[in-house]
Amino acid sequence: MAEARFDVVGVGNAIVDVIARTDENDLARLDLNKGTMTLIDDAQAQWLYSEMGAGQETSGGSAANTLAGIASLGGKGAYIGKVRNDQLGEVFSHDLRAVGVEYPMRPATEGPATAQCLIFVTPDADRTMQTFLGVSMMLNPDDIDPETVGDGQITYLEGYLFDRDEAKEAFVKAAELAHAAGRRVALTLSDPFCVDRHRASFRNMVEGHVDIVFANRDEITSLYETDSFDDAIGQLVGKVDIAAVTRSEEGSVIVTANEVVEIPAEPVDKVVDTTGAGDLYAAGVLYGLTQGYELAVAGRIGSICAAEVISHYGARPEESLAELVREKLG
Amino acid sequence: MAEARFDVVGVGNAIVDVIARTDENDLARLDLNKGTMTLIDDAQAQWLYSEMGAGQETSGGSAANTLAGIASLGGKGAYIGKVRNDQLGEVFSHDLRAVGVEYPMRPATEGPATAQCLIFVTPDADRTMQTFLGVSMMLNPDDIDPETVGDGQITYLEGYLFDRDEAKEAFVKAAELAHAAGRRVALTLSDPFCVDRHRASFRNMVEGHVDIVFANRDEITSLYETDSFDDAIGQLVGKVDIAAVTRSEEGSVIVTANEVVEIPAEPVDKVVDTTGAGDLYAAGVLYGLTQGYELAVAGRIGSICAAEVISHYGARPEESLAELVREKLG
Repeated sequence: MAEARFDVVGVGNAIVDVIARTDENDLARLDLNKGTMTLIDDAQAQWLYSEMGAGQETSGGSAANTLAGIASLGGKGAYIGKVRNDQLGEVFSHDLRAVGVEYPMRPATEGPATAQCLIFVTPDADRTMQTFLGVSMMLNPDDIDPETVGDGQITYLEGYLFDRDEAKEAFVKAAELAHAAGRRVALTLSDPFCVDRHRASFRNMVEGHVDIVFANRDEITSLYETDSFDDAIGQLVGKVDIAAVTRSEEGSVIVTANEVVEIPAEPVDKVVDTTGAGDLYAAGVLYGLTQGYELAVAGRIGSICAAEVISHYGARPEESLAELVREKLG
Repeated sequence: MAEARFDVVGVGNAIVDVIARTDENDLARLDLNKGTMTLIDDAQAQWLYSEMGAGQETSGGSAANTLAGIASLGGKGAYIGKVRNDQLGEVFSHDLRAVGVEYPMRPATEGPATAQCLIFVTPDADRTMQTFLGVSMMLNPDDIDPETVGDGQITYLEGYLFDRDEAKEAFVKAAELAHAAGRRVALTLSDPFCVDRHRASFRNMVEGHVDIVFANRDEITSLYETDSFDDAIGQLVGKVDIAAVTRSEEGSVIVTANEVVEIPAEPVDKVVDTTGAGDLYAAGVLYGLTQGYELAVAGRIGSICAAEVISHYGARPEESLAELVREKLG
């Protein structure tokens, strides 16, 4: 097998985040379901934006955040996801390239605007996301470049993309190309409601196309429609090689057929905004796996990355994760 | 005289900031003059942006930052400044209205894009600004709405606008309208190089049209081409009623014909980004003046506002300044 040019190739929704501080009363007034991600259309996005406080725009998108994390750790990454040739599309492309992630796709010259995620952050650091998918959801199998995917040690797929059939087909294509090149495929379940909406597709994907799954407790219990975390983990590990499951402040657990590795959460002085916590945890674990570290170390790197991103607003690292990991792991 | 609907009406360049962390080596490589504001054209902006690290977009513009501060203090403000009908123009308009500043101008439907300021923040929290003025510099006398200006206790003008003749004419018109309505006019000198470029115009403005001047040490010594701070202050106070001069960590001094009030800087745990320090100081002082507080109190409010904005990235307050002032002043 040829050496991989990339540690990780990410496929996801290319989104610019608009982050604003809010409070519980405002969430109630706007009828928002705290802590979740909801898809909204253009009209809803305009209305919600008009009701939202002053914002801060930063590039986001779950898999793109993970790739930014990989780059900050010193890894090599590439990204596949769709923006328009508009100002926010330029912001998204710039930010990804500026941190060293390869992003070969050209912006679309027609169709809806670049995707935006309105993120309402409450004082308890929880985030409620309202996503207008815009042109990002036009991703289709033609956008999956065989060369890029074949060049990635791990191809990492973002579950949020399951909301559109063509994107599911793009996922299957990416997974098949990766496996044909002798590579591994990882999937993040992204959101319990997203799993609810597409349970059968997720199960198919997990059973037939995926080697590594990232999820949180709610997502895997939703996937297997059970109240029991252990039951869900058991079912999942029958299907995939590695399941990395986050449990917020209780840390995470990485499970394989032979091992259960518990990883404590990294202490944080003050949790400011939990946006990106899962994405950066995945960055750390994927980086660890591609460097050939054992699971406990990969998990620890994941915890360190997640701790950095929740200590400030925005879903991408502000410190050098490579330096942070060096300091913490020695 | 009718009661004023607004405490402050601001006139300035409507700009979206792009903030990225950088270091001294990078400033040298990009040939940037640390700590200053430089005007750049579209091509330079594109090149610099491509060389810049991942960014965070927030609404800026000196006078607009001041108005956001006034609103956060509980004051009533209106803003005059020009954006295009593009995504960043929408961001700018949204952010100003979201904090409660009246912004009646419609976005331009033609001409250059909404202005952008590329801000390079070094680890010592200093900021180097490269501004593409875009459509903001198309501001002209027709944009000065007599009703809005007549309705402001103080009309506050941003020196950065002096870089274009039509904008200077707009300033003179705004000042004349304000005075005709029995109101006061304030001007900030904005930048020593801006004063260098337009010394005669600034002196004319200060001598003929302005009651209150905001400046820092470099700006007033540049205005009067002297090395002596005291000499410069002396000359300035002969021309205007109030001169509020900032001296970074040494605090500020507010001078009138009868009084010299020294105001200490407010202590800050960690200075993160000095962008907006002068703008928010002006917000505090203007708010104090319009509430009829004595100069020492107005200055103290200015220091409190400046301290808040330098403790995080971005040039607009993140905490409620009204609450902060209540806490600090009791």
